[in-house]
Amino acid sequence: MLMPKTSEELRREQELRSMKRIEEMMRRIQDSIYKGMPPEFEMPVRKGVFDPEKKRLVLGTSKTRRRYMNVAHTRKFMQTLKVAETCYNELLKKHKTTTIRDLFYSVLGTIPGTKIQTFNDQTESNLVSTDLEVALGLAREDLNLVAESSGSVVGDVVIEDNGDIIDWSKMGSGGWSVPSVVDHIVFKKVNAKFILYVEKKAVWNRLREDNVWKKYKCVLVATRGQSDRGTRRLIKRMSDEFDLPVYVFTDSDPYGWYIYSVIKYGSMALPHTSEYLATTRAKFAGMSMDDLEKYDIPKSHTLPRKPADIKRAKEMLKYPWFQSEFWQRQLKKAIQTKRKAELQSLAKYGIEFISEKYIPDKLKNQDFVD
Amino acid sequence: MLMPKTSEELRREQELRSMKRIEEMMRRIQDSIYKGMPPEFEMPVRKGVFDPEKKRLVLGTSKTRRRYMNVAHTRKFMQTLKVAETCYNELLKKHKTTTIRDLFYSVLGTIPGTKIQTFNDQTESNLVSTDLEVALGLAREDLNLVAESSGSVVGDVVIEDNGDIIDWSKMGSGGWSVPSVVDHIVFKKVNAKFILYVEKKAVWNRLREDNVWKKYKCVLVATRGQSDRGTRRLIKRMSDEFDLPVYVFTDSDPYGWYIYSVIKYGSMALPHTSEYLATTRAKFAGMSMDDLEKYDIPKSHTLPRKPADIKRAKEMLKYPWFQSEFWQRQLKKAIQTKRKAELQSLAKYGIEFISEKYIPDKLKNQDFVD
Repeated sequence: MLMPKTSEELRREQELRSMKRIEEMMRRIQDSIYKGMPPEFEMPVRKGVFDPEKKRLVLGTSKTRRRYMNVAHTRKFMQTLKVAETCYNELLKKHKTTTIRDLFYSVLGTIPGTKIQTFNDQTESNLVSTDLEVALGLAREDLNLVAESSGSVVGDVVIEDNGDIIDWSKMGSGGWSVPSVVDHIVFKKVNAKFILYVEKKAVWNRLREDNVWKKYKCVLVATRGQSDRGTRRLIKRMSDEFDLPVYVFTDSDPYGWYIYSVIKYGSMALPHTSEYLATTRAKFAGMSMDDLEKYDIPKSHTLPRKPADIKRAKEMLKYPWFQSEFWQRQLKKAIQTKRKAELQSLAKYGIEFISEKYIPDKLKNQDFVD
Repeated sequence: MLMPKTSEELRREQELRSMKRIEEMMRRIQDSIYKGMPPEFEMPVRKGVFDPEKKRLVLGTSKTRRRYMNVAHTRKFMQTLKVAETCYNELLKKHKTTTIRDLFYSVLGTIPGTKIQTFNDQTESNLVSTDLEVALGLAREDLNLVAESSGSVVGDVVIEDNGDIIDWSKMGSGGWSVPSVVDHIVFKKVNAKFILYVEKKAVWNRLREDNVWKKYKCVLVATRGQSDRGTRRLIKRMSDEFDLPVYVFTDSDPYGWYIYSVIKYGSMALPHTSEYLATTRAKFAGMSMDDLEKYDIPKSHTLPRKPADIKRAKEMLKYPWFQSEFWQRQLKKAIQTKRKAELQSLAKYGIEFISEKYIPDKLKNQDFVD
C-alpha cells in the first residue's frame, strides 16, 4: 500500500522541482556563453488576458527575451540571475522561506570593484522576482518566496502541517493563522459542505461567535482586506480537492467586489499565478447595491464614496468578467448613488442579523451570482 | 478541592460584574430623576499622566460631570446611555462580543418623532464608548466590545479557550491567531523562559522557521504594526502570571520604539487601560540607532525618514519615559541621520543572521534597555 506523503515530503519535492528548473535555465545560459553566443533567456510577456474558456485571467502568448548584451537589459539580466542564485542557495537548498522584502535586503550590495548598487530599491527586486517566476513557469511560493499572510480559518477540518496535527474546530475564540505557503498541507479530515469567505476579520468573528460554521457545516475564512496568496491558494485547494462551492461575502463597494473577482479570476498584475490561485467556481453572495434596497439600509448606515472608488467602478465597468447585467447594474448604481455600505451596516437590525437572517437567506435561496 | 474555573465560567463572571456596574450607574441616574434632580453622572477626566511610581501611564485624578440639563452635554448624555443600553442588552446579556464599528451601526438611528440622528459618525460612538469605560471603571473588553486583533503566537504553551485545548507548539507553519479578548483563557501549561515580541509577521515567520522559540524556550509573539489590545493583554497576563520577562524587537524607527513604549507603559490616548494592558517589566532589545553602527548596516540597507517620523521623534524627546541617556541618543540620531532601518536589513548578512546571531547575542549579553 502506498503511504500518503507527509507535508515535509511534499515540501522537499517542490523544492527539488524548483531547483531543477533554475538549473535548467542556468545551464542554457552557460551553454550559450561556452558557444560564444550572447547569454539570454526567454520569458512570456506579463500581460493578463481574460480567457473565456478557462474563465480566468491567463498570461498572453507573446514572448520576450532578456539579452545580456543589450544595454537596456544588462542590469535586469544581472538582477534576475542574482535573485535566482539567492533563491537557489539561500532558500530552496536550505529549506527556508522568506518575504520579497527580506529578499531585497539580501540581494542588495555593490558590484565588486565599483560603487554601482545591484538594486536601487525593492521595486527592482520585486520586478525581477516576478520575471523569474514567469521565466521558470513557477509561482513565487515555489521559489520559497512568500507574501505576508493575514488569513484566519475555522471549520470541521483536520490537517497535518510540518508533522503537527491541527484541528480547525478546536481553536477557541481565535482561529488558525493561514501561513503564506499551503501547498504542503495534508488534509486529514474535511467535514464541510462549502467555504464561506468574508473580507473582514470583524465579520468572521461575528459568524464564528454565532456558530455559523457549525450550523451550516462550512469552512469560515477571512482575510484583512485584499485576500493574500496563501489564503487564496488554501481556498482553491480545498474547493478543488473536496469539491466545495465557495461563497464570497464582501462590502457593497467596488473594492470589495474586486476582492471577489481576484479570488475567482486571478489578479491582473500577476496573471501567470491565476492557474495556481484562482477558484473559478467561487460565487458572489453579497453585499450588492441591490441588497441595500432589499434590506432597506438607510443612508445613515452607508458611507460616502471617495473619488477613487468612483474611478475604480468606472474601470471595472469595462472588465470582461464584469459584463453581466447584474454587475453592470451594481457598478452603475455605485457610481450614481456615490454611497457604499459595509457588511456590518446590517447591524441596524441587531448584531446577529447577519448570522441569523442575511447569510441563511442567501444560502437557502441560492442567491449567488458569478 | 476547588476545581479551577473554565474559560466559560470566567467569561460569565466578567459579564455579570460589568452588568452590575451598568445597573448601578443607571440606578443613580434613575434616583436623581425620581428625586426631581437633574440626571448626571461623574467620570474621571481622560488625560494621561506618567506615574513614576507605577512606571506607567495613569488616569489623572480630576473628575468631570456629564449633565443632562446642560445643553452642551445633553447629546453626549443620551449617546452614553444608548451605548450602555446596547452593551447591556445586546452584548453582555446575550454573551456576544462586537467591534466598535459594529456597535456604531447598531446604535445608529433617529430620535422618535424627529429627524435628529442619534449619532452622526463613528467618532461620536467611539468617544462615548470610551467615556462609558472610564465612568464605569472598566476596560472596553469588559463591555464585550472588542478591537480587531492581529496577533499570532507560537510556543510550548497549552491553553483552554471555550472548551478547546490549544497547543501553541503544534500550529504547523501557521500560528494561533490571538483573539480580541483573552481574559477568559486558562493556561494549562507554560514551558517558557521569556516572551519575545516582534512588530512584524515577516520577522516572526523567520524566527518561527528557524526554531528560535524551541532553542531559547520562549513564546514568540507578533502583531502587524502597532500591537492590538488582545495581544498586549495576552503578553501582560503571561508575563504577570508566569513571571516571564518580555523582550521587544522593533525596527530602528521612532514608530517602532513607540510600539515598544505602548507595550510597556500604555497608550496616551487610553491611559485608563494601562493598568490592564501595560507590561511594565518589558524591555527593549532592538533595533536601536546604535545597532546600525554596531552591525555596520550600510546606507543602502536603510530607508529615508518621512517628515512625519522626524516630527514624531521630536515629540518623543519630551516624553517622561524616553528621558534616559540611551533613548535621547537614539531619538537625536534618528533626527540627525534622517534614515531608519528595518529588522530585515540584517538580512545583509544572510537571512538567518537575525535568528543565529543578532537575537542570540542580545540574549547572551542581556543587551536590553528600559
